[in-house]
Amino acid sequence: MPVYQAPVADTLFILNDVLGFERYNNLPGFSDATPDIVEAILGEAGRVASEVFHPLNQVGDREGCTRHADGSVTTPAGFAAAYATFREGGWGGLSADPEYGGQGLPHTLSAAVNEFISSSNMSFAMYPGLTAGAIAAISLHGDETQKRTYLPNMIDGIWTGTMNLTEPHCGTDLGLLRSKAAPQADGSYKISGQKIFISAGEHDLSENIIHLVLARVEGSPEGVKGISLFIVPKFVLDESGKPGTRNGVSCGSIEEKMGIHGNATCVMNYDEATGYLIGEKDKGLRAMFTMMNEARLGVGIQGLAISEIAYQNAVVYAKDRIQGRSLSGAKAPDKKADPIIVHPDIRRILLTIRSINEAGRALVLWTALKGDLSHVADDEKERQAADDWMGLMTPIIKGVLTDKGFDNAVMAQQVYGGHGYVAEWGMEQFVRDARIAQIYEGANGIQALDLVGRKLALNGGRAVQAFFAEVGAFCEEHRNDEKMAPFTKGIHKGSKDLQQATMWLMQNAMMKPDNAGAASTDYMHMFGLVALGYMWGRMAKVAQEKIAAGANGHTEFLEAKLVTARFFMERVMPETAAHLARIETGSDTMMAMSADAF
Amino acid sequence: MPVYQAPVADTLFILNDVLGFERYNNLPGFSDATPDIVEAILGEAGRVASEVFHPLNQVGDREGCTRHADGSVTTPAGFAAAYATFREGGWGGLSADPEYGGQGLPHTLSAAVNEFISSSNMSFAMYPGLTAGAIAAISLHGDETQKRTYLPNMIDGIWTGTMNLTEPHCGTDLGLLRSKAAPQADGSYKISGQKIFISAGEHDLSENIIHLVLARVEGSPEGVKGISLFIVPKFVLDESGKPGTRNGVSCGSIEEKMGIHGNATCVMNYDEATGYLIGEKDKGLRAMFTMMNEARLGVGIQGLAISEIAYQNAVVYAKDRIQGRSLSGAKAPDKKADPIIVHPDIRRILLTIRSINEAGRALVLWTALKGDLSHVADDEKERQAADDWMGLMTPIIKGVLTDKGFDNAVMAQQVYGGHGYVAEWGMEQFVRDARIAQIYEGANGIQALDLVGRKLALNGGRAVQAFFAEVGAFCEEHRNDEKMAPFTKGIHKGSKDLQQATMWLMQNAMMKPDNAGAASTDYMHMFGLVALGYMWGRMAKVAQEKIAAGANGHTEFLEAKLVTARFFMERVMPETAAHLARIETGSDTMMAMSADAF
Repeated sequence: MPVYQAPVADTLFILNDVLGFERYNNLPGFSDATPDIVEAILGEAGRVASEVFHPLNQVGDREGCTRHADGSVTTPAGFAAAYATFREGGWGGLSADPEYGGQGLPHTLSAAVNEFISSSNMSFAMYPGLTAGAIAAISLHGDETQKRTYLPNMIDGIWTGTMNLTEPHCGTDLGLLRSKAAPQADGSYKISGQKIFISAGEHDLSENIIHLVLARVEGSPEGVKGISLFIVPKFVLDESGKPGTRNGVSCGSIEEKMGIHGNATCVMNYDEATGYLIGEKDKGLRAMFTMMNEARLGVGIQGLAISEIAYQNAVVYAKDRIQGRSLSGAKAPDKKADPIIVHPDIRRILLTIRSINEAGRALVLWTALKGDLSHVADDEKERQAADDWMGLMTPIIKGVLTDKGFDNAVMAQQVYGGHGYVAEWGMEQFVRDARIAQIYEGANGIQALDLVGRKLALNGGRAVQAFFAEVGAFCEEHRNDEKMAPFTKGIHKGSKDLQQATMWLMQNAMMKPDNAGAASTDYMHMFGLVALGYMWGRMAKVAQEKIAAGANGHTEFLEAKLVTARFFMERVMPETAAHLARIETGSDTMMAMSADAF
Repeated sequence: MPVYQAPVADTLFILNDVLGFERYNNLPGFSDATPDIVEAILGEAGRVASEVFHPLNQVGDREGCTRHADGSVTTPAGFAAAYATFREGGWGGLSADPEYGGQGLPHTLSAAVNEFISSSNMSFAMYPGLTAGAIAAISLHGDETQKRTYLPNMIDGIWTGTMNLTEPHCGTDLGLLRSKAAPQADGSYKISGQKIFISAGEHDLSENIIHLVLARVEGSPEGVKGISLFIVPKFVLDESGKPGTRNGVSCGSIEEKMGIHGNATCVMNYDEATGYLIGEKDKGLRAMFTMMNEARLGVGIQGLAISEIAYQNAVVYAKDRIQGRSLSGAKAPDKKADPIIVHPDIRRILLTIRSINEAGRALVLWTALKGDLSHVADDEKERQAADDWMGLMTPIIKGVLTDKGFDNAVMAQQVYGGHGYVAEWGMEQFVRDARIAQIYEGANGIQALDLVGRKLALNGGRAVQAFFAEVGAFCEEHRNDEKMAPFTKGIHKGSKDLQQATMWLMQNAMMKPDNAGAASTDYMHMFGLVALGYMWGRMAKVAQEKIAAGANGHTEFLEAKLVTARFFMERVMPETAAHLARIETGSDTMMAMSADAF
């Protein structure tokens, strides 16, 4: 069975030493997040992830979810008890509004905890993950009555939530959706239609399921401007606010899919189900979009999470499996062969994964911190800058960390040779589970288009300019620091490539939007590499300072940071040049072929 | 359900127009392979693949193989009947020795047919595929009696074969193997031990299964120098040569694995099974290696095969699925949205896959032709040059086409969005099936080591020098041909990068072998890109010539070749620079970390 140990020390290094979490202790939420509290929370989250959720990961994959004839759904053995543990631990309310029963801690902490739980059991983590999305939607767009009615039980976890967007004929292009909402005399609506790919759509973990559903009010315009968002509870609440009558929504079937078998991916049928408009009529899509940053960050974290557990298990095997000898002479002459970690090609794989994970974790936490600051920073300018960063980095984190997360899971599986292909060892499950993160919550091609088509030009390019300025200042600051040269050189080169690509886009994509589309995926990955490289620069600097200050017993940890940072610059960053070369060839060739000729 | 149409026209283009198959019609085997015969064979193979094998592909995945209490194994519904069709069509004997019932046609043709069958149903194709490997082993190393005893029925297909190398504790490092062979008075041996990951180890398709098994004769030295190869039939033959007594070999279990569920991957237990030494005692590993070129070429073909069918189905969906509008204005204004093939990012995916498939097919057929010529060419020098090419390209075809094949299957799945993750559409099966090809028959890291550690330096680097000379001559020949410039420029640049990497290896890897290990995977992929690029150069030249000559009704086909060739040069080839940059950083950083620090 695979192992899992939450990367608590690495998370604390990022929060305390790289991000200087304590600096913000005058801000709401942060004041309660003292270093001791943070360490205790992460330690306990890691423990629960390893001991409670992780042992169910393979079980969940094997058993999957079962839909019964009456439309009810049973989750895999042990999931209900584990969910009770999750709920009792208050994990769902960690950073929720204290007004409605939450603990009000920074979202940055939730992001860290979310990584641990997703690593240990991604399918399980999705149940509370979807609830968090629904909580965000109601918090942002619900009226006060709706908040008081739904949030406390959802934050407690006794009720869960879902997001219902996709229909058989429409995913990315929600303007095509057909689900209908018929206004009723009492102000409610009757919702009818079919939704597909609904994660956690039906299950046995909670007393009620609060579905958030996109539908078109009768008479509203076609396209995206006629879509509204509705609350549709599985059980309509009675007068005391308790689950009462069963609503006209049911699970029609569970999809058979490649992975995340422990999560019920449902076809949901709405048949005149009672729903309540949330936010403005016909403005449902905007309501969806405002909460997407959070959901997409969450999916990016899944990419990181699977990559982390895959890495840990690849390392275990690489140290344990003996096979062949080191090219530079036997390293374990007492054994019949050397452990395969002696081989450079195995180390190449392990360090590639590790260098992306550790920088990815820094980027996620950095961005989650910006998300917090965008709400609670004292200064309007700081809030805006934080919001800019958050908006810019969200598609990058979603797209890049899930693409890399999948690639990394595949590479980690490769370390196992034939054993990696066999279910028993668990490596192939990581690959199958990781795959969905590239697809849902906006396929990665859509993230790339969001970046080049929207985020780049937003507010006159303010966010991207601020990013380049920050990275440039960092390189400039350490320009004459010889020990920092291996890192600043790589960052500078990557950043130059990225700026050149950005310039190329400005000059070539305005008049010819296909050039933007043709560049989008390469550009997103390129941006991701520079952002990850910048994280490595910051981490390397801190590691050097701490080593110079005596390392305080963490020498091996800090030295490993420096090796991994160098590896990233040498082996991962060079890809920016290939991305740039591709981008600059434009769209002419790919558009030259007629659709029929494909 | 996925569709499949064998790429007969493309295969004929390569055989007839690019390789000039007819030039060889004076050689044994080739004389029977007239253009008409070749076209008829490929057409019929394509038909059988589409109509008989392909409809069973999803069934095989869903049902898998079943092991019964008595150790017998049932293949998925329909497989036995399909195998009868395969056998009756004589497909297993296409290029086998006429002396033993084969048709004696060139192996190049078998390679083409093998692609079609592997595309249509990879799990199914593996049953005769393993038989072909066993036939090759017996043909090369068996004595005349062994050949007469086993080959006719194996070539007929009424008996099948397997290869038994791996044991639980040893895969790559066969020197560790523990299976024992005890000599008997009658000259036979009693074989005992456990083998794992044995594809087609037990099943209900054939009357006998001829296992080829590596084991150590009692008293033979430890390590690779004490390994012998044995024939161990499931049923020991009676005096008339018919299957008689059940031998002491049985399937202990079937592995639960990520994909290729239609093929029985068995744990095989040998308990004093009667076996017959094949080839020299203690020289079994060498016997295995001489047939590995063929087996590895076959696995490379699987990578291409899955990539091809994944491409075909991605195209179908991209033309059919309407979602959103073209960035350059509506392309299907009569519909509510445009088909997604209008989007550059979708075309980027499709053309990436296509550009690798078509060049990959050319490289496979080119190399298979060299394999034929290495045996039948008139001239000793030509035979040697052909053998050099074959040896050099084999690890590249195995490693690169399976890595790319998997990546391509993943990209094709991405075109389907959420539907790609659902079993029903079949795209996720391609991904799961393709994954094994990167692992078995020598994991791709081993292919890369074979290339840099063995093939590069073999005979003083004769093979690689000949490759560079041939590519250089092609670029030089078309140096002043403006229409060829888009292609020769890319090939020249890639080839220069590759030569620089080769030089770097010569200068840095002799004294420090870890530098070779650290470079190996990048070097293999780089070499693959240049080889594929060279194929594109040759194909582009032919396409231009045929267009100039009037195209003979194939304008669209030929123009598509040129677009795809340009795409390859613009978007795929630039990766060589990133590979080179990585290689030149050497192994110091990755070796700097202690094993404990991982």
